[in-house]
Amino acid sequence: MTTIAFIGLGIMGGPMAANLVKAGHDVVGYNRHPEPVERLVTAGGRGADSAAQAVAGVDVVITMVPDSADVEAVALGDDGIYAHLSSGALHIDMSSIRPDVSASVAAAARARGLRALDAPVSGGEQGAIEASLSIMVGGEAADFEEARPILEAVGTTVVHCGPSGSGQTVKAANQLIVAGTIELVAEAIVFLEAYGVDTEAAVTVLAGGLAGNRILDRKAAGMLAREFQPGFRIDLHHKDMGIVTAAAREKGVVIPLGAVVAQLIGSLRAQGHGGLDHSALLKVVEQLSGRDQDGLV
Amino acid sequence: MTTIAFIGLGIMGGPMAANLVKAGHDVVGYNRHPEPVERLVTAGGRGADSAAQAVAGVDVVITMVPDSADVEAVALGDDGIYAHLSSGALHIDMSSIRPDVSASVAAAARARGLRALDAPVSGGEQGAIEASLSIMVGGEAADFEEARPILEAVGTTVVHCGPSGSGQTVKAANQLIVAGTIELVAEAIVFLEAYGVDTEAAVTVLAGGLAGNRILDRKAAGMLAREFQPGFRIDLHHKDMGIVTAAAREKGVVIPLGAVVAQLIGSLRAQGHGGLDHSALLKVVEQLSGRDQDGLV
Amino acid sequence: MTTIAFIGLGIMGGPMAANLVKAGHDVVGYNRHPEPVERLVTAGGRGADSAAQAVAGVDVVITMVPDSADVEAVALGDDGIYAHLSSGALHIDMSSIRPDVSASVAAAARARGLRALDAPVSGGEQGAIEASLSIMVGGEAADFEEARPILEAVGTTVVHCGPSGSGQTVKAANQLIVAGTIELVAEAIVFLEAYGVDTEAAVTVLAGGLAGNRILDRKAAGMLAREFQPGFRIDLHHKDMGIVTAAAREKGVVIPLGAVVAQLIGSLRAQGHGGLDHSALLKVVEQLSGRDQDGLV
Amino acid sequence: MTTIAFIGLGIMGGPMAANLVKAGHDVVGYNRHPEPVERLVTAGGRGADSAAQAVAGVDVVITMVPDSADVEAVALGDDGIYAHLSSGALHIDMSSIRPDVSASVAAAARARGLRALDAPVSGGEQGAIEASLSIMVGGEAADFEEARPILEAVGTTVVHCGPSGSGQTVKAANQLIVAGTIELVAEAIVFLEAYGVDTEAAVTVLAGGLAGNRILDRKAAGMLAREFQPGFRIDLHHKDMGIVTAAAREKGVVIPLGAVVAQLIGSLRAQGHGGLDHSALLKVVEQLSGRDQDGLV
Repeated sequence: MTTIAFIGLGIMGGPMAANLVKAGHDVVGYNRHPEPVERLVTAGGRGADSAAQAVAGVDVVITMVPDSADVEAVALGDDGIYAHLSSGALHIDMSSIRPDVSASVAAAARARGLRALDAPVSGGEQGAIEASLSIMVGGEAADFEEARPILEAVGTTVVHCGPSGSGQTVKAANQLIVAGTIELVAEAIVFLEAYGVDTEAAVTVLAGGLAGNRILDRKAAGMLAREFQPGFRIDLHHKDMGIVTAAAREKGVVIPLGAVVAQLIGSLRAQGHGGLDHSALLKVVEQLSGRDQDGLV
Repeated sequence: MTTIAFIGLGIMGGPMAANLVKAGHDVVGYNRHPEPVERLVTAGGRGADSAAQAVAGVDVVITMVPDSADVEAVALGDDGIYAHLSSGALHIDMSSIRPDVSASVAAAARARGLRALDAPVSGGEQGAIEASLSIMVGGEAADFEEARPILEAVGTTVVHCGPSGSGQTVKAANQLIVAGTIELVAEAIVFLEAYGVDTEAAVTVLAGGLAGNRILDRKAAGMLAREFQPGFRIDLHHKDMGIVTAAAREKGVVIPLGAVVAQLIGSLRAQGHGGLDHSALLKVVEQLSGRDQDGLV
Repeated sequence: MTTIAFIGLGIMGGPMAANLVKAGHDVVGYNRHPEPVERLVTAGGRGADSAAQAVAGVDVVITMVPDSADVEAVALGDDGIYAHLSSGALHIDMSSIRPDVSASVAAAARARGLRALDAPVSGGEQGAIEASLSIMVGGEAADFEEARPILEAVGTTVVHCGPSGSGQTVKAANQLIVAGTIELVAEAIVFLEAYGVDTEAAVTVLAGGLAGNRILDRKAAGMLAREFQPGFRIDLHHKDMGIVTAAAREKGVVIPLGAVVAQLIGSLRAQGHGGLDHSALLKVVEQLSGRDQDGLV
Repeated sequence: MTTIAFIGLGIMGGPMAANLVKAGHDVVGYNRHPEPVERLVTAGGRGADSAAQAVAGVDVVITMVPDSADVEAVALGDDGIYAHLSSGALHIDMSSIRPDVSASVAAAARARGLRALDAPVSGGEQGAIEASLSIMVGGEAADFEEARPILEAVGTTVVHCGPSGSGQTVKAANQLIVAGTIELVAEAIVFLEAYGVDTEAAVTVLAGGLAGNRILDRKAAGMLAREFQPGFRIDLHHKDMGIVTAAAREKGVVIPLGAVVAQLIGSLRAQGHGGLDHSALLKVVEQLSGRDQDGLV
């Protein structure tokens, strides 16, 4: 049993903290709005009134917050956790943020005698609830080994990918592939519909061959039915495409498909559909192909 | 047992004909070059000296030839099989060709009292040898039911997708998704390498989540090792991208990612790499990113 | 004075033939529908009842028809002009068609003791009326010199670009640049509008610098006012993008911007706007950016 | 005559300051490296040892520095000019930077009783020397009218485009169109060369029609000769593409061609050619088309 401070008890963080409790850990949670803290207490955890209070005396703190600026504020802010953690404590940031921010936060940790890992996750709300997340970890190998049992309480695939920031880099690559694959499946579906093909049969046979992918398995049925409730919202994927395109540009990596699909996700958001599931990329392909009900007048 | 004429005993057609023999059928093969015919005879089939001779008196003929023009020549040419087939015979064309050509060939068949299915396959040489192909079929439902036991002797997923040409349309969609997915994985790999990430670990974790796909499973290791022996050659995928972009244009379906990846495959071919496996798209991403050994001078 | 047969008296061909009459030539016109022939007679030309009749005994024939298949039919058809022209006659095809078709028509001409030039034009209906067309000519240099005085009666810039097909190749490049430039100006305008910039002032300053182009000069005002009457119709530019993308593919030339803008023109046509001016590409950018009145619902 | 402080006497700023001297103004220059200050003194201006010293008591200050961070540092830094300018003074920033930074700098100016215009230029070193720049100005109309006579001493086209930031927005649009037009011309040239067309003749006829643009006029000859000395460096255009793609993303404006050409410029830079003229985009098209001397091995 480890005492773990957990900052950020949202859609993802809430069930993850609860799973840590289930695994036998002593979890002290903090969240800006108090309701999730109460839920954690009900689940057997403890609550704190501030991030500073949560981390007092703990050896491990997990953060799960929305964006790069939030991680910087929680870690490095005037009353941030790095000002309150005991020397040698381990910070596991499971947020999805910019790789360079993860690297600089880790450097700031080292400068203060702390240790930091970036450990973003894939798998969504369902994965958080079921403790079946994929977790991509950047940082020192020894720190990863220390964190591994904790991470295995919330995920099934826990992989060390390299130095600080590497977890975020792999997460960025993940989001690139996911966005592109959705768009490819969308292009294929609209193409098949235009030719009057039996699309359910087609999805079955496509999923069985070299074209097979997780989007065909999990999202194609919803796409055929035009059901776009999230799931993973376009707004968040838009943020992530911003991360991956900027990170690729930073290193001179040319990503033609990534750049184009980032534009299409941006289009969906600009058209007011930021709250839909990312599989709604189908709507843009339909629109461009003159096959939506509404169209351009 | 059915007597089946088999025209086109190449890398794919040869093992498929042999599997039909194994399944107990009487197979009469014809090929422009004679060696594959001899192999079929050794495997227990029979040989013919011409397509016309092969189809004399049979109820079912399978064709497996390179491109649209070849199918038209074999079926509709002056000494083509439609001039020699008995009334009511069934032609199963398993070549990958343009959907509109499949539809017009099927119409020509009907006009002569014959029946035709388009039944292109996915799964490559290995799938042909192992009789584990995915087969996407277009044509009349009754003809499909009649053909099904024969097709199940060479493939494991056999699906009726709609009227004549539908098999080819689904195959075209398959090639669109495959090409795009390879390119996405290539962009991800070069991105990860540029950041010094442990790419083998990264591929593992990517394959386990929503980004998971058959290219990560089967091709990523070869891409990391820069091994690009085919497999499926760029030249053939270039032909297929021509089919899918033309077919999408014909129906007004807009495929931005398809159009861009078609350019990149065209680039690889233009640079003299038409004989490499399609996973060599990685080379173009590397080159554009200034990370190949050779580069632009 | 030369006796010139003129086949195809449409929006472009009609005024061009009239300008040849004005320049003192004896022009014998033929058109599928008879009204344009009557207009040519009123303008001082002569009429013919068939292409065969028009070319009887002439030394020069000009064709101005819609597409590749039309040129082939007029030149090479059973009752086509090549069957009726006197040996050594010169065929100037001013249609915009596929370069390879121009080259094969010219080869067919040579095989029959005739001579052929491809001489497509740029400048639109206004240029045809004002005899201010740009004319890009492919074929033998001697034939070009012979044709030059005739072509200078309908155009102001008359340039020999290389062997047979070269005129069409340059026309294809022209259409690539025009389409792409319209799209770039459209992206710039929507961008400037989104930021509340004074777009008329902006167009003035953009047109004055390195960004200056003929689209800013002639089309931007209409784009700002959302006036999209043709002009040059999307349907025709869609045909031309088909020619240039196929011709580039044929030679392994990779044209990423050309491929993307071809998709966007295809989108406009698929959405039912094939009859608008090509500057209506602005509508697609607006739509994708959620800034049209109608939008995606 | 006005006393004008001029901060940043580089390739552009140096000749601009000299032109202000020629126009009769009292110019006090400052530059990080002292040589350009000496040149200004030789040309009849005065020198200062710091930005703070340069602006002491002046009514107008012009800044011409490389990037957004430089403008922020010069204006808002601890010893920046805003700390030293007299109340009511006018700051004209002629650097090319992010529109949002220009807007926030202008807001900071207002908060301190100062006034600021953003006034980036187009026309290059030659335009700076010849005082023939195009200048796109954002800010208050009254401030623009006050600045106009000063700006007309360095440029021929001086246009007010809207509120603070608008000058930068128009400059961003300018760079988008320039980059895209170069790429379109590059695609056209490689296409024409592949077909063996007389490219000089082709450029002439293209420049004369609707495809005509300033790149064909000024850069095509150098592109045909493969002469890529700057001119305007890829490194700077890469910075500018970062600005325009980020600014478009910020407002939800979808720019498919802009996004793709940004990747291609990024490629040239990643391949070590950041110091070449932006017309070197031709090299990427050649490379992708297998038509460079070096190629992919």
